[in-house]
Amino acid sequence: MKTKVAIVGANGYSGEELCALLCRHAGVEIVAVSSRTHAGKPVGEVLPRLSGTPAIAGLSFCDSKIDVLLASGAEFFFLALPHGLASEFALPLIKAGKRVIDLSADFRLRDASIYEEFYGEAHPAAETLGEAVYGIPELHREAIAKAKIVASAGCYPTSIVLPLVPLLAAELIEPDSIAVSSASGVSGAGRKADVSLLYAECNESLRAYGLPKHRHLSEIEQELGAAAKRPVVITFVPHLAPMTRGIHSTIFAQLAPGVQFAQVEEALAAAYADEPFVRFRGALPDTKNVNGTNFCDIAARYDDRARRLILLSAEDNLVKGAAGQAVQNFNLMAGFDETTALL
Amino acid sequence: MKTKVAIVGANGYSGEELCALLCRHAGVEIVAVSSRTHAGKPVGEVLPRLSGTPAIAGLSFCDSKIDVLLASGAEFFFLALPHGLASEFALPLIKAGKRVIDLSADFRLRDASIYEEFYGEAHPAAETLGEAVYGIPELHREAIAKAKIVASAGCYPTSIVLPLVPLLAAELIEPDSIAVSSASGVSGAGRKADVSLLYAECNESLRAYGLPKHRHLSEIEQELGAAAKRPVVITFVPHLAPMTRGIHSTIFAQLAPGVQFAQVEEALAAAYADEPFVRFRGALPDTKNVNGTNFCDIAARYDDRARRLILLSAEDNLVKGAAGQAVQNFNLMAGFDETTALL
Amino acid sequence: MKTKVAIVGANGYSGEELCALLCRHAGVEIVAVSSRTHAGKPVGEVLPRLSGTPAIAGLSFCDSKIDVLLASGAEFFFLALPHGLASEFALPLIKAGKRVIDLSADFRLRDASIYEEFYGEAHPAAETLGEAVYGIPELHREAIAKAKIVASAGCYPTSIVLPLVPLLAAELIEPDSIAVSSASGVSGAGRKADVSLLYAECNESLRAYGLPKHRHLSEIEQELGAAAKRPVVITFVPHLAPMTRGIHSTIFAQLAPGVQFAQVEEALAAAYADEPFVRFRGALPDTKNVNGTNFCDIAARYDDRARRLILLSAEDNLVKGAAGQAVQNFNLMAGFDETTALL
Amino acid sequence: MKTKVAIVGANGYSGEELCALLCRHAGVEIVAVSSRTHAGKPVGEVLPRLSGTPAIAGLSFCDSKIDVLLASGAEFFFLALPHGLASEFALPLIKAGKRVIDLSADFRLRDASIYEEFYGEAHPAAETLGEAVYGIPELHREAIAKAKIVASAGCYPTSIVLPLVPLLAAELIEPDSIAVSSASGVSGAGRKADVSLLYAECNESLRAYGLPKHRHLSEIEQELGAAAKRPVVITFVPHLAPMTRGIHSTIFAQLAPGVQFAQVEEALAAAYADEPFVRFRGALPDTKNVNGTNFCDIAARYDDRARRLILLSAEDNLVKGAAGQAVQNFNLMAGFDETTALL
Repeated sequence: MKTKVAIVGANGYSGEELCALLCRHAGVEIVAVSSRTHAGKPVGEVLPRLSGTPAIAGLSFCDSKIDVLLASGAEFFFLALPHGLASEFALPLIKAGKRVIDLSADFRLRDASIYEEFYGEAHPAAETLGEAVYGIPELHREAIAKAKIVASAGCYPTSIVLPLVPLLAAELIEPDSIAVSSASGVSGAGRKADVSLLYAECNESLRAYGLPKHRHLSEIEQELGAAAKRPVVITFVPHLAPMTRGIHSTIFAQLAPGVQFAQVEEALAAAYADEPFVRFRGALPDTKNVNGTNFCDIAARYDDRARRLILLSAEDNLVKGAAGQAVQNFNLMAGFDETTALL
Repeated sequence: MKTKVAIVGANGYSGEELCALLCRHAGVEIVAVSSRTHAGKPVGEVLPRLSGTPAIAGLSFCDSKIDVLLASGAEFFFLALPHGLASEFALPLIKAGKRVIDLSADFRLRDASIYEEFYGEAHPAAETLGEAVYGIPELHREAIAKAKIVASAGCYPTSIVLPLVPLLAAELIEPDSIAVSSASGVSGAGRKADVSLLYAECNESLRAYGLPKHRHLSEIEQELGAAAKRPVVITFVPHLAPMTRGIHSTIFAQLAPGVQFAQVEEALAAAYADEPFVRFRGALPDTKNVNGTNFCDIAARYDDRARRLILLSAEDNLVKGAAGQAVQNFNLMAGFDETTALL
Repeated sequence: MKTKVAIVGANGYSGEELCALLCRHAGVEIVAVSSRTHAGKPVGEVLPRLSGTPAIAGLSFCDSKIDVLLASGAEFFFLALPHGLASEFALPLIKAGKRVIDLSADFRLRDASIYEEFYGEAHPAAETLGEAVYGIPELHREAIAKAKIVASAGCYPTSIVLPLVPLLAAELIEPDSIAVSSASGVSGAGRKADVSLLYAECNESLRAYGLPKHRHLSEIEQELGAAAKRPVVITFVPHLAPMTRGIHSTIFAQLAPGVQFAQVEEALAAAYADEPFVRFRGALPDTKNVNGTNFCDIAARYDDRARRLILLSAEDNLVKGAAGQAVQNFNLMAGFDETTALL
Repeated sequence: MKTKVAIVGANGYSGEELCALLCRHAGVEIVAVSSRTHAGKPVGEVLPRLSGTPAIAGLSFCDSKIDVLLASGAEFFFLALPHGLASEFALPLIKAGKRVIDLSADFRLRDASIYEEFYGEAHPAAETLGEAVYGIPELHREAIAKAKIVASAGCYPTSIVLPLVPLLAAELIEPDSIAVSSASGVSGAGRKADVSLLYAECNESLRAYGLPKHRHLSEIEQELGAAAKRPVVITFVPHLAPMTRGIHSTIFAQLAPGVQFAQVEEALAAAYADEPFVRFRGALPDTKNVNGTNFCDIAARYDDRARRLILLSAEDNLVKGAAGQAVQNFNLMAGFDETTALL
């Protein structure tokens, strides 16, 4: 007996990737795939990559309406919707006893005032923030397994939080010294008609954007602060790079007084030794080696001339940074092996 | 009466770009183009992009030998050769009364011991380092005009030195706080048969390399130290990005005590107001807007949450980062308008 | 005394390229650059690549209105507008005694009914078609020099017409045997907000489109028919390739009875021996060797197993396929050396 | 009890893709992965993308020697080796009672003289050609299931043979009228240090190569001739496109006298209605929709102006064009469901 799942908003890049991953999940039946703009069309027509895939054979997009979605019989709902809209779906689904994996920002912050500060509007459902768990399994595995709503973490945050949390938790680095330069593939900006995302605008182009207060800072600092047990404020410079997928983060920080670089390596090795999807390796991360996978690759180097720690990470923004992590969270929630459909 | 010039080692990316730029230079006659591997072949056959260009019509590659080169009658010699090899050409050319624009690292460092530290071998001509001028016109215009050898600056260094020098000179930032994350297009690695530079290896790939002590650090710190009038040690993380051309640098630094961000903006605006090739603008730099040009674009932002300065710059690694800057230096040396063939 | 020119609709890819080329034209003063959406903004703000270029210093976009344009004092007007709109500008400009280089399709066809067949609407100014000259200098040099309106040829047509015309004119190939497979960079589709042109949609994507009756067929067949002195109908399959610039055309045809391949080579060599911008060479064309230039590269091969001729060509769709050809036409019209600003 | 398999020559692009696919195959145990240059190194070090994948955990490359390979206990051997070398391994493996899936060209041709004509050397094991089956399951499913050696088909051939075979078999098109223009991603050229394959050489580049007698013509014409029951000679122009993966083929042909286009559509629909990996759909194929999958997408259009049939196809050159097809062949040979690990 397979677990019935639905994907709400499946025509964006994360939603499409979710469909592709869940098509490979032996324990899952996709019973609904929704989209406001494509309702009625066969999934394989809107997402031609998946055409002919048995798991979605005969399935058409349904409308993104609560009653329609509930009628599908799904127990788990993946929400791949814009922020603000996701909570409109999550709340009635929860009330109806369903469980939700939300890929938007709506439930990632525990403090509604931080949401308002970074998203420029009041949180749409501040009273429910307590029910959601931040969805990075490596940090919150047990809570995720029991949660009604998992707020699957963002792409930049995953690549930045995973290398830093073990070091902040062990007080090996100076929290105030952190500066991050990240680069993302263009799919991170979503499938939207925007001149600045055209091929001819992005090819041979590398540029920073969203300075100095990108929205993802809010969840990054929330998780770093939780690890450090004190507020952490960092500098974060995201860049758009000419590639479809992949995020690479380069993190500068200073070691805490008296700390040796070997302790950093040991802390990271220990934190991730048994994690199936974090590879702390000698080699420098490269987006091409994580694209299409749920891995986050991490490396550490020490610049002893300038006495500065350099952390590097890479992940696929649509997999470990979105759909793959959502499936990993779902596997925990539904009792599957955490790696199902992901290795 | 045109000025006769020769290009030694014209089959690499910088050499090819030099040829293309000099073909457009109304005051120049290209009398020799050399290559050890292509001697005897028409320039337009080896560099098909330039085939049919009148300025190289009938010109064939000559051998990269001093006597052959001198026989061309050239007064100015551009050296687009690997480090170590360039000085073997530069010294006899100088002795013969010629003037040299060297695109290699051989004459960029004033201290031979720094060369040895970073390049892992004794400097091939330490006694002549005093004769060379570091080739960033915005910093050393007058000395360049009179120099026998101009060591045209490297690609990463130009993108990092230009934004930082005015700030260090005015003591607006903390010299020890500088950390740089740069990304370069693949042409920066040269036209060499190396599996790691294949299209299928670099596409959809973004990775750091050369950590933590890239060779270009030596000249970067030399110029920053000269501006600061004290030794400066920085952290520098270069990355390879999936594009042919372009360098983007993101620089983190802290303001000196009591300094306001507005002073940073004023210092940069003042430094570059009259420079034809440095654009200090409001918009964030983007490699696509400098590719194919000799511009270096610079912007500054202040992260007041983390109290950290962010400087951003972009240039074409083969133009302002190599061949264009070489022509700019040449224009100064030969008495042409500095922008000839470059605007 | 420089020739005053205006560019109408300068914010698309062809218009931007026109600006860049004309900035380098020693005999030209750009007196007006217009755009309905950007009127009032400095050119360097809308087209940041050109910021800091002396030729457009101080110039702001004006409104795309006839009286405003005429007030600029320009004698020559480049129209980089969508088809249908261009003629609204061209006619009053002509009436006012100005000369027009139109990059749209409005004046390319001599037969208004063909326009209606391929563009799906009545020609906006059928009575004036007789005044325009089709703008491929290699074919119509003398008429272009005297024309009031030159309809600068399209990108695909230039790449297909140039290799075929000498062969059809000499009756060396079978007119009914021609089939063409072309590939274009994404800039050919224009700077418009369209999901199908996003980086993440076009990267790693190669696809045919516009089958089987692409609009450019009309002008291709017009010029081929004129050369063959009989109607010519061909099959044309355009493809979108993951690159910003460049068109590559591969043309299949059969030799006329009794014709030897050597005659094909001789005809092409003779046709283009003295042409500054057509390179008929031994090497197979490659878009990278023509990008950023006004060259069209052509090669011919013979498949003696299948007894079929293969013609190959490459050009930059924005230069020889648009803005460069427009400047070449302008040079003829205004009495400049044909290669000014283009070599 | 899992089926033991070995991959010989696993460090090329096809070999790496084979590893990745077989890691997902629930019925398979990878017992050996060989490489002459990487023997002794962990698989995850040489192929970092696969690092951390349970199926290759603890596995190191072994030497590519027959006795070493046989000692692994594998029953099935995938050969991802250059042509000429593959047969040196295949023959002793067959003699030892093993079964071979060869990705090279060594066993694809039934006629050794054709091999010699196209590969320029005598076939290394002409006497064994009769034992091999050409490995396109859609054409030779039953023979593949029983074969000792399956010569998994090449990338271009698969994309060209699949659309044409049903039409030639039904005599719907003129065999002599076929001309093909294909474009391949750069991975098709293999992971070898070659300047012409560098990122900076291939980016923004589209060029034809291998004219007019590419090696793959031999197997294409063999299979087309078998379908047509007469010799078929076609014109084939391959191109290199700036993408890592994907092949797109555009095929021109003429309908046989009296044939309607609808018959073409019916024949293709009928041929592939039940095939899991061939999608004959209304939409035009796009490489991005097949990359990473084992699908070959096919479409047909009719140019009624020129009375010419246009067939279009797309596949991932490393999956349906190499490793995926090899696994599909293996599944047939070993009695697995044909789609295992491929959907």
